[in-house]
Amino acid sequence: MTDPLILTLDEVRGLAERVLRRHGFGEAHAGAIARTLTAAERDECHHHGLFRLPFYVAALKSGQASGDAEPVVDDLAPGALRIDARLGFAPLALERGEEALAARAASQGIAALAINNANNVGPLWPEVEALASRGLVAFAFTSAIPYVAPAGGTKPLFGTNPMAFGWPRPDGPPLVFDQASSASARGEIQIRLRDGKTLPEGWAIGPDGEPTTDPKEALAGAQLPFGGAKGSSIALMIELLAGPLIGDVLSFEAGERDKAGTGSPCGGELILAMDPARLSAGGDRAAQLAHGERLFRRILDQDGTRLPSERRYAARLRTAREGVRIAPALRQTLASLGEEI
Amino acid sequence: MTDPLILTLDEVRGLAERVLRRHGFGEAHAGAIARTLTAAERDECHHHGLFRLPFYVAALKSGQASGDAEPVVDDLAPGALRIDARLGFAPLALERGEEALAARAASQGIAALAINNANNVGPLWPEVEALASRGLVAFAFTSAIPYVAPAGGTKPLFGTNPMAFGWPRPDGPPLVFDQASSASARGEIQIRLRDGKTLPEGWAIGPDGEPTTDPKEALAGAQLPFGGAKGSSIALMIELLAGPLIGDVLSFEAGERDKAGTGSPCGGELILAMDPARLSAGGDRAAQLAHGERLFRRILDQDGTRLPSERRYAARLRTAREGVRIAPALRQTLASLGEEI
Repeated sequence: MTDPLILTLDEVRGLAERVLRRHGFGEAHAGAIARTLTAAERDECHHHGLFRLPFYVAALKSGQASGDAEPVVDDLAPGALRIDARLGFAPLALERGEEALAARAASQGIAALAINNANNVGPLWPEVEALASRGLVAFAFTSAIPYVAPAGGTKPLFGTNPMAFGWPRPDGPPLVFDQASSASARGEIQIRLRDGKTLPEGWAIGPDGEPTTDPKEALAGAQLPFGGAKGSSIALMIELLAGPLIGDVLSFEAGERDKAGTGSPCGGELILAMDPARLSAGGDRAAQLAHGERLFRRILDQDGTRLPSERRYAARLRTAREGVRIAPALRQTLASLGEEI
Repeated sequence: MTDPLILTLDEVRGLAERVLRRHGFGEAHAGAIARTLTAAERDECHHHGLFRLPFYVAALKSGQASGDAEPVVDDLAPGALRIDARLGFAPLALERGEEALAARAASQGIAALAINNANNVGPLWPEVEALASRGLVAFAFTSAIPYVAPAGGTKPLFGTNPMAFGWPRPDGPPLVFDQASSASARGEIQIRLRDGKTLPEGWAIGPDGEPTTDPKEALAGAQLPFGGAKGSSIALMIELLAGPLIGDVLSFEAGERDKAGTGSPCGGELILAMDPARLSAGGDRAAQLAHGERLFRRILDQDGTRLPSERRYAARLRTAREGVRIAPALRQTLASLGEEI
């Protein structure tokens, strides 16, 4: 089990699907989750990849998540759809809603998709990338679990509350960012704890409310928003968008709901999609996207810059050639889930 | 001219209107701009108040702005409106578009208003406050002028690119934030230059591309985004939303357009409005807003916190009692515009 193991993307997907099926997920959910995990491995976002399998399995075992709930799509308004995920995981709901949302954006100019009661431990970039690949501009927002103190405060209240944005590009995959409104991902703190490293200043405060660079203190205390009061405002906005706006929970409520402590937050996600061709006089998508490219060129003309998602797309090309490397620790995890590879 | 001078809000508005009319603005624009300036004075946002009068006047004198263009409202799609401001200033376009946008949000669930070709030197909070006061959740985004380097870069490219957000509250004015995606407002650097003070770390780089705390170097170099790469992503997003998405200019193009160097950027603004009652199953606005209040209480339960816009609303109450204090420097500015008070 110490040799490096390399899998193809098809093997990764097949493996994920087998594990999920073995542990009680129905075919539709297992397939959708496996596709998301595989996309994460493909882009070398390993912390959202196979590494997450135990989270999915634990949430199902605890009774907190459903492995076979069929997401129900409702029509709320001409520009608003809703999917009740009925405690299923988000990926199937997202697949079910994508085409309907895209169609509404095209007919209305802008449309919203509210996803309720979804267990969500995945990234947000897949959904905005999917919409932007259809030529739409997209946002996604979700909240939970309460790990982050509001600016000036000392106690966890906000989730790490990511916001993702996607913009279509004419000759390649879209420009996408997906960023937490906390100064760091929680996983980055956990990794530093594991590796015996300290944290940069500004990431966290300890249980005593004082700034700390000790990962253990940070995990027992509170993470901080990125960028001070401005990041805190964004975290607050995301709480409202993914919660009360769409009739779903706030991060602190999702935390209270997670009785099993699986860390699998169940709650809301808001997705917005806009059609550039419907939002400008004379709507000329090709000209509008070419205009965006002029900005991207100006950015890249400056040494030291890069575009959001560049690293993921570079990884994607690399993985297609070289496959996915499965680390020994992950092999042990997979073995514990009944998958000896 | 050294005695403190106190004006009522009506006097402020009347004075602003007289100055604007005297310098060539038509009645409709003078009235709308005066209402915006007065709202800024009322909330003690003095840098967006009467202090700005010379900017409006200079932009008109340079021929870059129009003082009497009637904003034209177009229907782009069921969920999308557009206003061509035809080089007029934004406040009149905003007043003309507000009700139509609110009606679309109510009927469609979500709606967008694209404002094109507007001169805009005002804040964004008035428009999101107006929409949120109607029970809607609102965003506003605008860009220009190129003062901010992208993360990793050293040359100005992005505007200070503010984003505003408003959330209705049942028993008082809405929760609103309006924040630049730069680490500081440009005005804060100018004020420190005037007062002979240095800048905090992280605000700017000099023309040599190195970090600086010297306001003069900062103004000749580039401002920095707030919160590093994440703030830079937000600035980039706002460039796209207020520019190519709605068929308008990028910040660097607005800068090139500002030949007269008035600093009055002419370009686009995107406003989104969402109706909470249409975005949730069973739509119960009162319950949704009460839910938001539970979050606000949890924030304020922590010592050291406050809600965005709290300081503005406190100032609003104070000004209603005490009037607006006109500083000697401002009296001189007003005198130079023909208003001896």
